[in-house]
Amino acid sequence: MSKLSSKGAETRARMVAITARLLQRYGYNGTGLSQIIKESGTPKGSLYFHFPQGKEQLTTTALLESGQQFAAELRESLTPDISPGDAIELACTALAQRMAESNYQEGCPLATVALEASSTSEPIRLACATHFQEWQDLIQETLQAKGVEREEAHEVAVTVLASIEGALLLSRVHLSTAPLEQVGRRIRRFVEQLVDQDR
Amino acid sequence: MSKLSSKGAETRARMVAITARLLQRYGYNGTGLSQIIKESGTPKGSLYFHFPQGKEQLTTTALLESGQQFAAELRESLTPDISPGDAIELACTALAQRMAESNYQEGCPLATVALEASSTSEPIRLACATHFQEWQDLIQETLQAKGVEREEAHEVAVTVLASIEGALLLSRVHLSTAPLEQVGRRIRRFVEQLVDQDR
Repeated sequence: MSKLSSKGAETRARMVAITARLLQRYGYNGTGLSQIIKESGTPKGSLYFHFPQGKEQLTTTALLESGQQFAAELRESLTPDISPGDAIELACTALAQRMAESNYQEGCPLATVALEASSTSEPIRLACATHFQEWQDLIQETLQAKGVEREEAHEVAVTVLASIEGALLLSRVHLSTAPLEQVGRRIRRFVEQLVDQDR
Repeated sequence: MSKLSSKGAETRARMVAITARLLQRYGYNGTGLSQIIKESGTPKGSLYFHFPQGKEQLTTTALLESGQQFAAELRESLTPDISPGDAIELACTALAQRMAESNYQEGCPLATVALEASSTSEPIRLACATHFQEWQDLIQETLQAKGVEREEAHEVAVTVLASIEGALLLSRVHLSTAPLEQVGRRIRRFVEQLVDQDR
């Protein structure tokens, strides 16, 4: 890779990372291109060079990165070494800790944008839907690997993901880790009962 | 009441109702005062007459109305005539139906604004937190009335509310009633087991 293209890749990566963080904190309409340009320290021309379709394209790219990162963390939590119930509770505890560290500014990397844009941008809605589906599939696979029957694992995975998403919302709004911790504890028991009964 | 003040009250109510609907669909940053003025057919001066502090004040007022309406519907669902598990499933089914009727544009009246504004507006964050707390208390009271011990009822109420909020998000993003229906079914069973075991 030439020096220029490596520098270009670095600039692009920086813009994407900053956009992902701003989207998580302020949402789609609350994140301005001027803010992205300022915080990433790159000229406007550079933004349009890397993302000729502008903000919507930069947003779907940033969501892709956030979504994959969240999936990687989830995959790591859902290791086969511990029970799926424990894994889900641990994931909630980790999310609670991260949220407190960000002073309740960073919760789900997708939810704000997903709610705002699902009425106005089909590419953004689709990007969010794809990632939520991926996270849900990861939970479902973990349950099936523990012997839960496919259809039941599907329905429980939707419920687990929904609970975590709702807990992220409530923790953010209440400026408290309690909802994530409480939901984590309850969902652990709920999943444990299910796995025990199917074993 | 004089004719003028009754007309004024009507104008005010129309502005609040339109704002509530726009906030639900497009969020705080996606809802412009010009759109509210246009859709309510009232002059700009009228908006500032009723809401001298502008958009933030109009928003907290609209959230208050939406929050109370949602609480009233929840209170109606959680009638003592049926089990809390059945009531929660019915509430999810009703939400799914309403969402489909709005072409997946209207989900939780607070969630979008709550996520967007919790980093930027303390009055809006507080308004949302108050309503989420009220809904959660309604669920907790219902569980306690069925014999579930206070602390457990609290934790389960947080989990039920989180699941419903998450299901509203997933249904909206997937343009499908399935997440709400699936979560409703699972949460019914989860609550039933709990009530049975505490009885």
